Amino acid sequence: MPDAQLLECFPNPAPAGDTGKRDFVIEHFSEEFTSVCPKTGHPDFGHVTLRYLPKEQCVELKSLKLYYQSFRNEGIFYEAVTNRIADDLAQAMQPKWMVVQTDWKGRGGIRSTITVEIGQRDA
Amino acid sequence: MPDAQLLECFPNPAPAGDTGKRDFVIEHFSEEFTSVCPKTGHPDFGHVTLRYLPKEQCVELKSLKLYYQSFRNEGIFYEAVTNRIADDLAQAMQPKWMVVQTDWKGRGGIRSTITVEIGQRDA
Amino acid sequence: MPDAQLLECFPNPAPAGDTGKRDFVIEHFSEEFTSVCPKTGHPDFGHVTLRYLPKEQCVELKSLKLYYQSFRNEGIFYEAVTNRIADDLAQAMQPKWMVVQTDWKGRGGIRSTITVEIGQRDA
Amino acid sequence: MPDAQLLECFPNPAPAGDTGKRDFVIEHFSEEFTSVCPKTGHPDFGHVTLRYLPKEQCVELKSLKLYYQSFRNEGIFYEAVTNRIADDLAQAMQPKWMVVQTDWKGRGGIRSTITVEIGQRDA
Amino acid sequence: MPDAQLLECFPNPAPAGDTGKRDFVIEHFSEEFTSVCPKTGHPDFGHVTLRYLPKEQCVELKSLKLYYQSFRNEGIFYEAVTNRIADDLAQAMQPKWMVVQTDWKGRGGIRSTITVEIGQRDA
Amino acid sequence: MPDAQLLECFPNPAPAGDTGKRDFVIEHFSEEFTSVCPKTGHPDFGHVTLRYLPKEQCVELKSLKLYYQSFRNEGIFYEAVTNRIADDLAQAMQPKWMVVQTDWKGRGGIRSTITVEIGQRDA
Amino acid sequence: MPDAQLLECFPNPAPAGDTGKRDFVIEHFSEEFTSVCPKTGHPDFGHVTLRYLPKEQCVELKSLKLYYQSFRNEGIFYEAVTNRIADDLAQAMQPKWMVVQTDWKGRGGIRSTITVEIGQRDA
Amino acid sequence: MPDAQLLECFPNPAPAGDTGKRDFVIEHFSEEFTSVCPKTGHPDFGHVTLRYLPKEQCVELKSLKLYYQSFRNEGIFYEAVTNRIADDLAQAMQPKWMVVQTDWKGRGGIRSTITVEIGQRDA
Amino acid sequence: MPDAQLLECFPNPAPAGDTGKRDFVIEHFSEEFTSVCPKTGHPDFGHVTLRYLPKEQCVELKSLKLYYQSFRNEGIFYEAVTNRIADDLAQAMQPKWMVVQTDWKGRGGIRSTITVEIGQRDA
Amino acid sequence: MPDAQLLECFPNPAPAGDTGKRDFVIEHFSEEFTSVCPKTGHPDFGHVTLRYLPKEQCVELKSLKLYYQSFRNEGIFYEAVTNRIADDLAQAMQPKWMVVQTDWKGRGGIRSTITVEIGQRDA
Repeated sequence: MPDAQLLECFPNPAPAGDTGKRDFVIEHFSEEFTSVCPKTGHPDFGHVTLRYLPKEQCVELKSLKLYYQSFRNEGIFYEAVTNRIADDLAQAMQPKWMVVQTDWKGRGGIRSTITVEIGQRDA
Repeated sequence: MPDAQLLECFPNPAPAGDTGKRDFVIEHFSEEFTSVCPKTGHPDFGHVTLRYLPKEQCVELKSLKLYYQSFRNEGIFYEAVTNRIADDLAQAMQPKWMVVQTDWKGRGGIRSTITVEIGQRDA
Repeated sequence: MPDAQLLECFPNPAPAGDTGKRDFVIEHFSEEFTSVCPKTGHPDFGHVTLRYLPKEQCVELKSLKLYYQSFRNEGIFYEAVTNRIADDLAQAMQPKWMVVQTDWKGRGGIRSTITVEIGQRDA
Repeated sequence: MPDAQLLECFPNPAPAGDTGKRDFVIEHFSEEFTSVCPKTGHPDFGHVTLRYLPKEQCVELKSLKLYYQSFRNEGIFYEAVTNRIADDLAQAMQPKWMVVQTDWKGRGGIRSTITVEIGQRDA
Repeated sequence: MPDAQLLECFPNPAPAGDTGKRDFVIEHFSEEFTSVCPKTGHPDFGHVTLRYLPKEQCVELKSLKLYYQSFRNEGIFYEAVTNRIADDLAQAMQPKWMVVQTDWKGRGGIRSTITVEIGQRDA
Repeated sequence: MPDAQLLECFPNPAPAGDTGKRDFVIEHFSEEFTSVCPKTGHPDFGHVTLRYLPKEQCVELKSLKLYYQSFRNEGIFYEAVTNRIADDLAQAMQPKWMVVQTDWKGRGGIRSTITVEIGQRDA
Repeated sequence: MPDAQLLECFPNPAPAGDTGKRDFVIEHFSEEFTSVCPKTGHPDFGHVTLRYLPKEQCVELKSLKLYYQSFRNEGIFYEAVTNRIADDLAQAMQPKWMVVQTDWKGRGGIRSTITVEIGQRDA
Repeated sequence: MPDAQLLECFPNPAPAGDTGKRDFVIEHFSEEFTSVCPKTGHPDFGHVTLRYLPKEQCVELKSLKLYYQSFRNEGIFYEAVTNRIADDLAQAMQPKWMVVQTDWKGRGGIRSTITVEIGQRDA
Repeated sequence: MPDAQLLECFPNPAPAGDTGKRDFVIEHFSEEFTSVCPKTGHPDFGHVTLRYLPKEQCVELKSLKLYYQSFRNEGIFYEAVTNRIADDLAQAMQPKWMVVQTDWKGRGGIRSTITVEIGQRDA
Repeated sequence: MPDAQLLECFPNPAPAGDTGKRDFVIEHFSEEFTSVCPKTGHPDFGHVTLRYLPKEQCVELKSLKLYYQSFRNEGIFYEAVTNRIADDLAQAMQPKWMVVQTDWKGRGGIRSTITVEIGQRDA
């Protein structure tokens, strides 16, 4: 069951407000995401890209992996998974800007990609 | 025979108007499209990319597949197929913005791509 | 409906028995094969490779294309299609040696390849 | 829980003993296999290739997919999974010759492949 | 000898002025272009990309192929070929916007690309 | 018109009979071959690979290029071109062993390869 | 231990202020970077891209290599490494604009990229 | 020794000022550039891309090749080579806009790219 | 310091002698190997492939990773590293057959591969 | 001027005769070879692969690089270069078995490969 509590954060080691610091971009790309189609019960396999501009918090890598793993046996649609991950991460990190993109292997000969963007990169 | 009735929609699970929600992009990529050249009677093979920003409705994946399959024995030109798909999907989903692109295997040594865009992404 | 009558042959222009001639290998590779799954009614898409050592006859290219197209709306399994093509071509050309291989796009996340070999290359 | 009972077979449609028939090779390639590491509890992701020369029976494609899915939450090592799949399929189909190969995404920076061959191709 | 008379057009099947229609982009990509270097007499081989926004006319695909073939034995420089094709197509179709790009295999270890753009895409 | 007279040879600079010398393999790969289909009059485009074990003569590179160019406006089938090139080169160089392979771009959605081998590599 | 003292600079050979000169971009791409994860003690492997618009100084290539090597046994997080390299290089060269990007091999199935930009390219 | 005298130009065959003409872009890409590192004496190998918008003159292809070859035994740094080529070509052709980019194979595990732009594309 | 003691084994889960079992092949591929050149002191980076036919023991994956890491600061030549790894693994596992291959990134423009085979695969 | 004196050897660190040792294969692949065409005076660029089974001596890597560099301004044909390198290395190392392969960039649209093998791998 997806569990946002698994997400742990650590303080941004180089926040833009500090002397001589500036914004920077962090990307984490996972090729090992799986959940279950709520309609057919068959597993879905996808890649998840997280790209963000941190404010005060960064998500800790191992906790992110465990969080992704918590979707393993969840019946959930592509669109819902992607928005759920975006909401949970936005809640946990409060980033300046964030993109979550899921890229799914084909089902019935159709591959799909869902992209959620929160905030504006150059705001 | 192409049949727009096959297209079924479901409500956008995360519409931009809802609290804490925002626009997001959905892409469906099919490598298994075929129709027939009305001039020569020979089959055409192509890829179809659908990319859109949903408003209130999203197209259901299996219905999209059946809709694409309904072109299988239709005699129809590249340009007409692409505009037809765009019109049918715009009618069914009323998206904020949409691109339909078809990418055809070579005929007589020439490969072709047709791209239809409806609405403006940042409108 | 698959129609072996569509296959036309022409005499091997350089048969091994002629003065100064020797066996040679011909390959024809089609990326545009489609038939129908007899179980689900959904279309199957595949590539077909024909590789052979001609004896007295070679298959004419355009007739091969029309023969492949005759499977378009036939409900037939992967294994049956491949053996059917091999049998029809062996009957039509009587080659010294022949391989027919079909390579199918994924269905339910599984891609398949079927390979039929008739005769021995170095017999 | 891995369940060999899920495997269903159908009669070889072109057995070598029949008039004008000969051996042929069937390959099924799945990019969507996942099980669990029994040591760490983390999921493993891999590809599974099945390649065989049928005797009297062929494995049915959808049942193969369900059989693979039954490993989803099983804690089992790479070597054991591969031998288990090979044993179950050999038991179910009694093929003339068979190869099962699993190809695993990296764990700790090391990717692994396990290959089991049963019988001899040219026996 | 290059022959612009070979170019045939057909009416844009979905002109932007019609109800519910909008501009769309057509691309034709040929990998089989050859002409002759006027200096050395050696053949040149290239790819030709045509990308345009149609107004009232679209170029017919087979006529485009024959038009390209008419350069086969013409001695003509890279720059001249590209501008000639652009001029002939602009004359024939009167498109809203058009790009013609030629991409040439190496001569003396140097590969070349020539790009002509007519009109403005967002005019 | 194909012209075998264009082929010029030079003495093998390291013939196997000389002290401390041994057989070696030479390959020339051309991506710029074109001839004409005798049936349709349309140009054919292909790659030609020459691979051989020289005896006393090697083919000179520039003469090979001019020889290939002499097919430019010849109406000739795939099988005939390949056997013709093999015969002409065998006649000119008398190699110990030789392979000529032509690899043709698709016509009607089918790509073809023709392979002629003369002599035995390990004879 | 990371050692910024290792960085040596040489005067920009073509500074924008000189007659007939203009800004230009320099990129150095290293595929051989390694440091140590401070949490697990396991080595991390990555690629480092440096892209900059020089002002008066350019970093000398061999000194850059030695500087990168000085991280070999340092326990340091992805985010910190990247900001550290950016700060050290900005201090040493005072460039008009600079991007440092690190691209890390997967850890726990997740690959990461960190991107730091200093200054504005078109400022 | 680099020799700008080797560069020859010919008049732009389709200058923007002529009736019905417009600007167009020319690119020449050489994969066969070599010079010598002035520090170590070892050879450097790189690719050179020239991209420009001609005004009244275009550089002749064979003279460009000979000009590049004149750097073969010159001891010269990456940055200097690139600016030198840009200056010589700008002097010879007086283009509206030009980019020269050199892309160097690795030295000490670091690959480099230098990019010089002269003028503004849309000026 | 390379430390063969780090290597741990576990019993072959499917030894060929057991009922219904047969030999199988195990491969482990690491892209994260580094050691130090004893001559220059510069780090070397390579990939290590281990391929073997187990007898009674298999090497445990995490111990293999730690063993590889123990070469991190060792000054050792390509040839010696590869033979050392082969000897240590042969000693630890006593496999029926084994290949160790190292594939090194370029040094001075030359990439190298060293391959050690112990025993015979079909013995 | 090619100079075989530049080649230095070091004793095979793991000769097959020693206790517990066996033959192993060494490969060195250089992408940075250049010489001059004796006919046209234009530079040739190629890749050189050396693959051998050492007896008592191995070629030292830096000396190999300098030896290759000594061909830089030598006018010499493809076939002669390859046999020359093979002879010089065979003389210097006296390997059990050796292959030298050169792979040349295109000249006049034709790419070439020359392969010299000395001794028998399984002798």
